[in-house]
Amino acid sequence: MINIQLLNKDFESRVRLGIMSILMVRDWVEFKELKELLDITDGNLASHAGALEKNQYLQVRKEFVGKKPRTTYAVTQLGRKSFQDHLAALEKLLGQP
Amino acid sequence: MINIQLLNKDFESRVRLGIMSILMVRDWVEFKELKELLDITDGNLASHAGALEKNQYLQVRKEFVGKKPRTTYAVTQLGRKSFQDHLAALEKLLGQP
Repeated sequence: MINIQLLNKDFESRVRLGIMSILMVRDWVEFKELKELLDITDGNLASHAGALEKNQYLQVRKEFVGKKPRTTYAVTQLGRKSFQDHLAALEKLLGQP
Repeated sequence: MINIQLLNKDFESRVRLGIMSILMVRDWVEFKELKELLDITDGNLASHAGALEKNQYLQVRKEFVGKKPRTTYAVTQLGRKSFQDHLAALEKLLGQP
């Protein structure tokens, strides 16, 4: 049996794979930079980042710089562990001969 | 920029990753065996296999063995190429330091 149940449905979408990939290697990245790195719309990023935050994979910091709001993201410990598990399951599934 | 657009949305779901992974290494697998290998329901497999067939990634053979219908699947050339491209994009995205 091939254990696709080990793949985490929360990370299925390519946008979420992209967000997590970036935040696994960088702490506190701004919304605007994430959006540009992934080349996606505001709405698309907000929706997927919101889902990841809701599942406690991301932590979010909202602050003001002068009068401009700034939103930044970082992975939580749960997010890091869950994404590592997901990658391990992906490798196991896709790495078979 | 991280090119998540190279990831193929048709292969996002873990069920489709599972179906394609099996059919990349085996020709003509029966519906019943695929279902057992992936440990999913009839409806779930039928829905995702149907979507892959519609996009011409899979070819389907329907026949009768005695009075019992038998459905078998194999990847098409397009399916093989598209999935290989998807895996390459995944590796590129997730393999970064």
